[in-house]
This record gives sequence, C-alpha cells and structure tokens, in this order.
Amino acid sequence: MSGLPLSNAHRTNAQTEATSAHPPPSSPDPTVQQPEHAAQGGLTAASAASTSEQSHSLNELSTLKTQLKSALRQFPDFPSPGILFEDILPIFADAKLHDALLRALELHVANAYEKPDVVVGLEARGFLFGPSLALRLGCGFAPVRKQGKLPGECETAGYQKEYGEDFFQIQKDAVKTGQKVLIVDDIIATGGSAAAAGALVKKLGAKVVGYSFLLELDFLKGRAKLDAPVYTLLSSQEEKREG
Amino acid sequence: MSGLPLSNAHRTNAQTEATSAHPPPSSPDPTVQQPEHAAQGGLTAASAASTSEQSHSLNELSTLKTQLKSALRQFPDFPSPGILFEDILPIFADAKLHDALLRALELHVANAYEKPDVVVGLEARGFLFGPSLALRLGCGFAPVRKQGKLPGECETAGYQKEYGEDFFQIQKDAVKTGQKVLIVDDIIATGGSAAAAGALVKKLGAKVVGYSFLLELDFLKGRAKLDAPVYTLLSSQEEKREG
Repeated sequence: MSGLPLSNAHRTNAQTEATSAHPPPSSPDPTVQQPEHAAQGGLTAASAASTSEQSHSLNELSTLKTQLKSALRQFPDFPSPGILFEDILPIFADAKLHDALLRALELHVANAYEKPDVVVGLEARGFLFGPSLALRLGCGFAPVRKQGKLPGECETAGYQKEYGEDFFQIQKDAVKTGQKVLIVDDIIATGGSAAAAGALVKKLGAKVVGYSFLLELDFLKGRAKLDAPVYTLLSSQEEKREG
Repeated sequence: MSGLPLSNAHRTNAQTEATSAHPPPSSPDPTVQQPEHAAQGGLTAASAASTSEQSHSLNELSTLKTQLKSALRQFPDFPSPGILFEDILPIFADAKLHDALLRALELHVANAYEKPDVVVGLEARGFLFGPSLALRLGCGFAPVRKQGKLPGECETAGYQKEYGEDFFQIQKDAVKTGQKVLIVDDIIATGGSAAAAGALVKKLGAKVVGYSFLLELDFLKGRAKLDAPVYTLLSSQEEKREG
C-alpha cells in the first residue's frame, strides 16, 4: 500500500526538495488521542523539573500542538499525484501561531533534552524556525547547506537521493568538540538528509542530543536511520479530514 | 576596475547562489565615519517618535552595527578568485550577536517605516532572519521561493541570471491587497532577485514599504532596480582590513 506514495515521495524529494510531501494519512494521529506522547523523546533528562511543572508544560504543549495542527493546510496531489502536501506556511503567516510554534519547540526541548549549545538547521526550511529556536534557547545556530555554499573549511557528508548522491556541508568551526547539538528540519522523510547532518555534527566531535521536526512521513521509517531521540511536533491531519 | 569582480560575482551568483560574495572594498565604509547614515531609508515616517527617542535609538543602532560588523568574517577568493566573501554566519553562531542583529533590524524598521504587516524573506538566507524579524515586529512572515517549491496558487516572476532566466514564486494568499510589506535578504547584489520579490508583492496588490539587507555590493548598483527605500545594515570591512 505504501508503494505508490513512497515512490512518489522519493521522486519528488529529488526533484523539488518537497520534504513536506505527505501521503494521505492511513491511521489516526496518535498524538491526538494519546497526549502522553506529547513528550516523545523522553522526560528522563528533565531531572530538575518537578512533576507538577512537567505536567503543566506538557498540558501547555498539548494545547499548542492542537492549535498549530489546525493551522496546517493540505494540498492534494502536490507536487505529484497521490501526495498530500502539508503546508506549514500558515503558521509563519500569523505572528501568534509563529510564537506558539517556537514556544512548543522550546517546551519540548526543556522537557526532553539537556539544553543544547547549538541548534543546527537544514537548508532551506530548517532555516525558517531553527534560528528563532536558537534565539529562544539562548544558544548558537549553525546551518547545514548544500555543497559549495559555505565558505571556509567544511566537513562534507553524502546522502542518497533517487538519482544518485547529494552532499551536505557544515563549517568546521560551526560546532565544537563536546558541544550538545539539536538538529532541526521541517520534516523527516527517508531520514537521509537528517542522518547526514548528524554525521557532520559527529565528525566535528559534538554530540547530537536530538532531532526535532514539525512533520514526519511515518511510512518511510526515517527515524530508524537516526541514533538520537527523534521528536515530531505535529503529524497527520486525520482529525481534519474526518471533519 | 569593477570588470573582474563584477564578472566573477555574477558567474558565482548563477552557479552557487553565493550572494554574500563581496569584492575587496575599495573605499572606506561610509557608515563607520558617518553615523547619521545609520538610518538610511529615512526618518520621515517616524512621526510618532520624539527627537530624543530617535536620537537614542539611532545611537543604539550605531553601537549594534559596529558590534555586528566586527563579527563578519572574510574569505578571500571564495567562491572564485578575486571575490572577498563576507560570512554572516558568526552572527548566528552567538546568541548575543544574533539578538543584536534582530534588535538592530527592529530599530531600523521602527525608525524608517510604517510598521509592516508582513515580512517577506528570499530563499534561502533571507529565511535565516526574516522569520525572527517578523516575530519581533509582531507581523506575519512569507517566503519567496524558487519555482516549484510552494504548494497552492502562486504568482511567478522571472529574473535574469548569467545563463538565462530564473523564477521566483509567492503563494497568492501570502500577502493581501493593501498590506504593507518589508522584503529582506542577506545581500543585495545585482538587485534582480529582490526586484522580482517586489514585483510579486505588487502583483498581489500589496505595498512594498522597504527592502532590508545585511550587506550590499555597491558597485553592482542593485538598489537602482528597486522602487522602495533600501537599507543595508552592515557593509564592507575596510576598518578590519586596515587593522
């Protein structure tokens, strides 16, 4: 059943970087019925927060997620037939939703990880909220870009696309040995580009504390490629499609 | 004298989107010796602010600019011989500088324009600070992207690159008739891409109140292509090269 959308999503990815492409959801969104999933990635590191503080922030996070998910727009058959594209741009178009997005990501990070030293965002949609999140967290931001766009000494890592390999780069001094790094992008599809970003961070001797995405193409099982906790803030639109 | 760097900057632009490429500066940076230039774009719209408030914010802006300019890094001969690349990424790597950048842009907007309804940022480096600036200003953010990347109905505008035309798009509902729009990107080179973004905004019936950039390739005279006030926050690094 996933053959057609998988194939389309893959082709699409290679042609137009359409990482927000999403197949029609085939199962209910688990985060709607199971709010305890709001803290995917774990609370184990949140030793300093009291249980009631955690409970309060998880409730706030759950409210924000509902608000944000209802703002997503769906475009069927974009960029190719069989793909339901989830458009995150209405969130950025509205200052209150935009603020809610940053607050939600901030809450998740506070609950789930040691505070990162650097947020690394993937070109191009990871730039839409990675720098703002870094500002909120009071940490640095560094971009991972396509090969040839960053000046100075860079590390390079390849990842598979449908018709061959593509390359990502990070500046060698963008993160330092021992630093804690959170990697962000708008969506996790096959996980190849996120895994390449993680490899770059590790080449520089830093530690990936987690990966945060807004959306996930579950059926592609991209999170299996990543060896740090993976968090997806929003997910499919089952509840809107039933409305 | 500008033949070689102009030609290189142009080729470079087409090949690697290296819009931060900067030729070696040939004249002192006017903003260093002439702090009254800090409010390029004009104070005429700031009718609500008192003269002393304006003076205070211009002093703060001047201090922030000096701080930010000293953080820029220069990479000679990147991405091609004869080009001095100005790297803005150290600003984003440091939370205090990153905050200073947003504060400086916010101060400029408050002094120079009517408050915009929407900040429009150009792919990809305009995404690094456009959304954060929109958050600070409490207004919406909308991206202008390369053709084929945005879902839904879009307006399209072409701009010249060395080997033909490229196309930018904006979603048709990204800005509304009569709204005030600020267009941002990291650098203005030939002005072609910024002019295309302005054309898209105007096609949607909105008004461009100004263009804000971090850097400018003065010798390319890109601002002559734009029909709204143009502001460049930072400029060349003459004072560092003399040190």
